[in-house]
Amino acid sequence: MSITFQIHNRRGTARTGVLTTPHGAVETPTFMTVGTQATVKGLTPDQLAAAGAKILLSNTYHLALRPGDELIAELGGLHKFMNWPGPILTDSGGYQVFSLAERRKITDHGAEFHSHIDGKKLELTPERAVEIQQNLGSDIAMVLDECPPADGNPEVIRNAVRRSRLWAERCKTHHSRSGQALFAIVQGGTDIALRAESAKALVELDFPGYALGGFSVGESPELMHAALPECASFLPELKPRYLMGVGRPQDLLVAVAAGIDLFDCVMPTRSGRNALAFTTEGTLRMRNARHRRDSAPLESDCPCYTCTNFSRAYLHHLFAADEMLGPTLLSLHNVAYYLRLMGEARAAIDAGTFEAFHAGCLARWIPR
Amino acid sequence: MSITFQIHNRRGTARTGVLTTPHGAVETPTFMTVGTQATVKGLTPDQLAAAGAKILLSNTYHLALRPGDELIAELGGLHKFMNWPGPILTDSGGYQVFSLAERRKITDHGAEFHSHIDGKKLELTPERAVEIQQNLGSDIAMVLDECPPADGNPEVIRNAVRRSRLWAERCKTHHSRSGQALFAIVQGGTDIALRAESAKALVELDFPGYALGGFSVGESPELMHAALPECASFLPELKPRYLMGVGRPQDLLVAVAAGIDLFDCVMPTRSGRNALAFTTEGTLRMRNARHRRDSAPLESDCPCYTCTNFSRAYLHHLFAADEMLGPTLLSLHNVAYYLRLMGEARAAIDAGTFEAFHAGCLARWIPR
Repeated sequence: MSITFQIHNRRGTARTGVLTTPHGAVETPTFMTVGTQATVKGLTPDQLAAAGAKILLSNTYHLALRPGDELIAELGGLHKFMNWPGPILTDSGGYQVFSLAERRKITDHGAEFHSHIDGKKLELTPERAVEIQQNLGSDIAMVLDECPPADGNPEVIRNAVRRSRLWAERCKTHHSRSGQALFAIVQGGTDIALRAESAKALVELDFPGYALGGFSVGESPELMHAALPECASFLPELKPRYLMGVGRPQDLLVAVAAGIDLFDCVMPTRSGRNALAFTTEGTLRMRNARHRRDSAPLESDCPCYTCTNFSRAYLHHLFAADEMLGPTLLSLHNVAYYLRLMGEARAAIDAGTFEAFHAGCLARWIPR
Repeated sequence: MSITFQIHNRRGTARTGVLTTPHGAVETPTFMTVGTQATVKGLTPDQLAAAGAKILLSNTYHLALRPGDELIAELGGLHKFMNWPGPILTDSGGYQVFSLAERRKITDHGAEFHSHIDGKKLELTPERAVEIQQNLGSDIAMVLDECPPADGNPEVIRNAVRRSRLWAERCKTHHSRSGQALFAIVQGGTDIALRAESAKALVELDFPGYALGGFSVGESPELMHAALPECASFLPELKPRYLMGVGRPQDLLVAVAAGIDLFDCVMPTRSGRNALAFTTEGTLRMRNARHRRDSAPLESDCPCYTCTNFSRAYLHHLFAADEMLGPTLLSLHNVAYYLRLMGEARAAIDAGTFEAFHAGCLARWIPR
């Protein structure tokens, strides 16, 4: 087995554990910072490690298009290419084919599409998705899935569930890289019965980990929050559970309560580039003139490089002057914030105080 | 005296020394990395220090416009604002008024202009330039000068020399901040007689350091190279000499040979953002497809973070994918390269081998 997963403590359905990979161990629940194109935008691996990042996510679709998975393999694999010594999970590219590629055509065979970069015609089959990820050499690979839109009609979602099951099996058959785990992806939108059906079919195939895909693609957060506990309960208790592409801090805590172990989202870095800071007291828009003369850091008790060295006034200045360092420093803090939140959630689960911690966070973030 | 300067060794007119400021000592000759808007574009102070930077340059014109020199003073000064604990030199804004400001009108009283940011009407007098720099709290302030274009007719250049002398005196009279040195700026274009006249008039006013301004503003490098030895000889032997805004590595070595101690230029950072790398063997254009599969670092013996951790192939990928980390990593290397070149020049002067070092550099950079 290329990865192992051990659960340490439980509090209701929430749990803490350790995911061990060939590139190191990660305490869960945890957040995977997104490095789509083999780089977390604006941050060096050293800065990421200092912010507390242990595991990164990168992307099959983007890397296959540019620079090419064979080139990365030739250069020693993705870890070496991007100089990240810790664990890496690669998404399969399913989501990107459906959201980024142009003029796509999806059949049971696979997805035919035109690259969003140069319009070149390409094909992504389950076998090719596995091959790309084997070339990249990630610690965790994901099966190719069909990710239907949140507003897709029941027939579209039902067909995506059927096809994702079919593709998951072909991925599993084709997968052979030792030291790399292949996770399955459950689809089904917010239809609990379809989620149950999708999960059941994939559990029969016995994967080492399971993801919930197709959330945060347009449905309301309330619908997702309502669906999560049951959806998580359909997944094997003793294997890692990953909620893909979600989300805001409040979404993460709801999902942790439901028993999710792994998360990824562009929110901390994309928001950082757009001058939005996450703090224990809620979000701050750093372009707002009220920060202009503020000598305080973003958070007085945050140990990140940004908070220990720079004032809100300086961050405001960097964004006002359109300076690159603004996005870098704010992304750095936001990543540190997300990882700190996950660390606090773990500590609260271990201490048996998770419900109080969760309620306290919401009370501060969403003042009445 | 707020700064002291000691010469250690000489080789011809080249010399090594130490410039001591309230924020630390700097071995000379050295290069000052440019942080125009209170930030070196894309680099944190930690990254700059790791690259070997000891002294930064920032800008009166830009900071007075945004965020405002009084705001910076209120927040504890420029060092604290940008979190740079080492020495800072601030340029007076003369060059920017002439190159960036809109609809400017220059009289002996000062410069009236419209801000390049919001078109607001502003005035920069010698007294105001000193006041701004006193608010910023830099270690070295520069007098306000008039920087004529390289193709200005003799009358324009003659008048700039006269006015710069007048303004230098008013700056000196107005300057009162202890712990801050005020340097004078010699003008005169490439007219040696005018440079001599300008230098003589300023030396009579007895400043603690002298700069050569108005080079690298459009004249050919050959003209500048030819003029430098005499121009440097007009400046006091025992005081620091600063060649403003120059330049390419070959220009720096010519100037070091002529007895210059301090340099600044946007070239390493601007080139870094534009995918141009400086190396001991010459420049590399990192967007060029020939780097696509190259697993070697930019320079195998460069100790910088970029060279010790990333391949040319990865840097090429970052620029091809328009990723922020490309400009950051390449700026970092280029700054480290410039500082390393200055360190090697100092070592060669101290060892009595500067001419051979200089010739060796040129032979590698400009292959026949």
